[in-house]
Amino acid sequence: MEYTVSNRMSTLRGSAIREIFKYAADPSVISLAGGNPAPELVPHEALADIAAEVLREQPILSLQYGITEGYAPLREAIKARLARVENIGGEDDELIVVSGGQQGIELATKCLVNEGNTVIVEQPSFIGATNAFRSYGAHLVGVPVEQDGMDLDALEKALAENSNVRFIYTIPTFQNPMGVTMSLEKRKRLYEIAKRNGVLILEDNPYGELTFNGVKTPTIKSMDTDGIVMYSGSFSKILAPGLRLGFLCAPKPIIQKVVIAKQVSDVHTPMLPQLLATEYMKRYDLDALIVKMRETYAHKCSTMLNAMDEFFPADITYTRPGGGLFIWCDLGHDLDTLALSKAAITEKVVYVPGNTFMVDMDEKCSALRLNYSTMSDEKIVEGIKRLGKVFHQALS
Amino acid sequence: MEYTVSNRMSTLRGSAIREIFKYAADPSVISLAGGNPAPELVPHEALADIAAEVLREQPILSLQYGITEGYAPLREAIKARLARVENIGGEDDELIVVSGGQQGIELATKCLVNEGNTVIVEQPSFIGATNAFRSYGAHLVGVPVEQDGMDLDALEKALAENSNVRFIYTIPTFQNPMGVTMSLEKRKRLYEIAKRNGVLILEDNPYGELTFNGVKTPTIKSMDTDGIVMYSGSFSKILAPGLRLGFLCAPKPIIQKVVIAKQVSDVHTPMLPQLLATEYMKRYDLDALIVKMRETYAHKCSTMLNAMDEFFPADITYTRPGGGLFIWCDLGHDLDTLALSKAAITEKVVYVPGNTFMVDMDEKCSALRLNYSTMSDEKIVEGIKRLGKVFHQALS
Repeated sequence: MEYTVSNRMSTLRGSAIREIFKYAADPSVISLAGGNPAPELVPHEALADIAAEVLREQPILSLQYGITEGYAPLREAIKARLARVENIGGEDDELIVVSGGQQGIELATKCLVNEGNTVIVEQPSFIGATNAFRSYGAHLVGVPVEQDGMDLDALEKALAENSNVRFIYTIPTFQNPMGVTMSLEKRKRLYEIAKRNGVLILEDNPYGELTFNGVKTPTIKSMDTDGIVMYSGSFSKILAPGLRLGFLCAPKPIIQKVVIAKQVSDVHTPMLPQLLATEYMKRYDLDALIVKMRETYAHKCSTMLNAMDEFFPADITYTRPGGGLFIWCDLGHDLDTLALSKAAITEKVVYVPGNTFMVDMDEKCSALRLNYSTMSDEKIVEGIKRLGKVFHQALS
Repeated sequence: MEYTVSNRMSTLRGSAIREIFKYAADPSVISLAGGNPAPELVPHEALADIAAEVLREQPILSLQYGITEGYAPLREAIKARLARVENIGGEDDELIVVSGGQQGIELATKCLVNEGNTVIVEQPSFIGATNAFRSYGAHLVGVPVEQDGMDLDALEKALAENSNVRFIYTIPTFQNPMGVTMSLEKRKRLYEIAKRNGVLILEDNPYGELTFNGVKTPTIKSMDTDGIVMYSGSFSKILAPGLRLGFLCAPKPIIQKVVIAKQVSDVHTPMLPQLLATEYMKRYDLDALIVKMRETYAHKCSTMLNAMDEFFPADITYTRPGGGLFIWCDLGHDLDTLALSKAAITEKVVYVPGNTFMVDMDEKCSALRLNYSTMSDEKIVEGIKRLGKVFHQALS
């Protein structure tokens, strides 16, 4: 039997990050590849108490079918939090609970993008999103990212040169993989450009709350008086990724279609994760947990940057993030970080090669992404030391 | 702003069943519409114990990212169970854990069906599946279902008349919505027809274990020596639907693509539901729970059939299932069960109108689906009594 794959899926490859995950399962390997929260910050005792209680006392709610839109008290809690923390949510918006931020992005794409339509993405950008766009046959156009966010002149050019642009995908705050943040000025201009061109914006903000100094740049969605911004959020980085819990807030007509798409995708998000998040927010102080995360990640980030300053060859450049989980590091010298990742694995350290985040993943890339949130301080320093050895050898 | 919906999603409507769910939330309404397991059979105390323990003792496993294919011990447990109970699983097959049986069907469709390709379905059939096919622009061709399963002459005709048939979708055992079971003879012939035509079969078997008399007809997948059958299974009817836990077992090249599709859909199925199912199967006797379900549903089914015999107009016909969750009831007389469902809601009883399960949902349908697994004996009798009143009025 020959298995004929659909056109949309025929060329899609798996995410290198998920593949690297398999090496990272070896405890002697130091993984600077993932994007996991620090394990010591995940409130597992509190979640254990809640899980036992809801399963025992509310078995029908927690174990029978729920509604596709999401558990109503969770939707209300998220809406209230979004309004308070991000100034998001007007009367024309609606919110759906999804199975991780990833699903909101995938469902929005399914509902909006025909095969051959264009989606404009930052370059580099999050492979989970770019692969979701590819999986519906989208034509991806990359726009370079500068230290203060997307190059908006390049964006205007991309909009002028491409027809059928369905939306602009951006991670404006603590961008994945670069760790940079779009300035307020650029956010305003991006919004105006999208509005003028009649193009939607998909704002992905899983890291926005993880600001080291507590200062936050307003979300693009908070400026959305015209109903042109879809906002994707997640509990993965502020509570626990294994719950697979996120949400999409967007104009009502879009969410109405996304609800139907979710119905045929997985009927609804599992009830237990929804109940855990709802009750955690009700009984505990999520804001206080996030403050702890900010402090921890600020410390881990500077630990990694200090080690990079010490152990990396002098002319390697890297970003110095104000929050989030990632540092973007460019080795220069026409090096190929995909090839080098094999040498790194030999030294028992893994990172994500930069080509992963590009529109053309086959093009050689001298940059790479490092994560500092998951490993202990000792392992961060040791991992950077091992990488420094690999890079010194490559440059000698 | 005008929101342009993708072609594939532009005409898709939500499932009537999910809409009826909203009425069913009113406790004075008797719902014969859903497909929920009997609440008293869901082992919530055991699951509460397990949840508390795994969250407390294995916080990283239960709350951090997992792998897309599914938690390895769960995959092994499902494979072992499939081999033992259904004689399924060869060396050329692979298995992925998915977020409910629905997701396996949706992902397989995404990987195999181009817009305009044909999918052959039983008529009537499960709307979750037919809507998943529609959501990728599939051309649906319906084949009538007889008391012993799909009309295979009609199937041969459909195959002769339609090109680009990607697969045949069937629920051979305790079919949804009809409750009928395909004979062994027909299964063998269906397999040969598919093989001869080079067409895949998607066998959906969420109810197969719920056989009232313990007798099981061999699955089509158990005959699959040519790698042409994809098999979709679920924990929704044998453990708890709110966990959203299912699996897809299919030839390796198909599962490899489905893994990539799942990666962009929701990264992986939430860990906690996966751990609950794994540990439940390890510590408790799932087979014994299923035996209890069989007894309970056999009793509830005959309670409903007896009430129908007593309270329904004499010339209404209905199936007498040997297992599963549903009875299919045809009022005849050119009645419209969609219109009648409003009268039923007034009497505080809900069912699913038969048009929901048809390829052309706009065509008037005199049949309807009844569920007996969810309600208590008293409510089953009272619900049928109320429906009998509605039907007597409609026929007078």
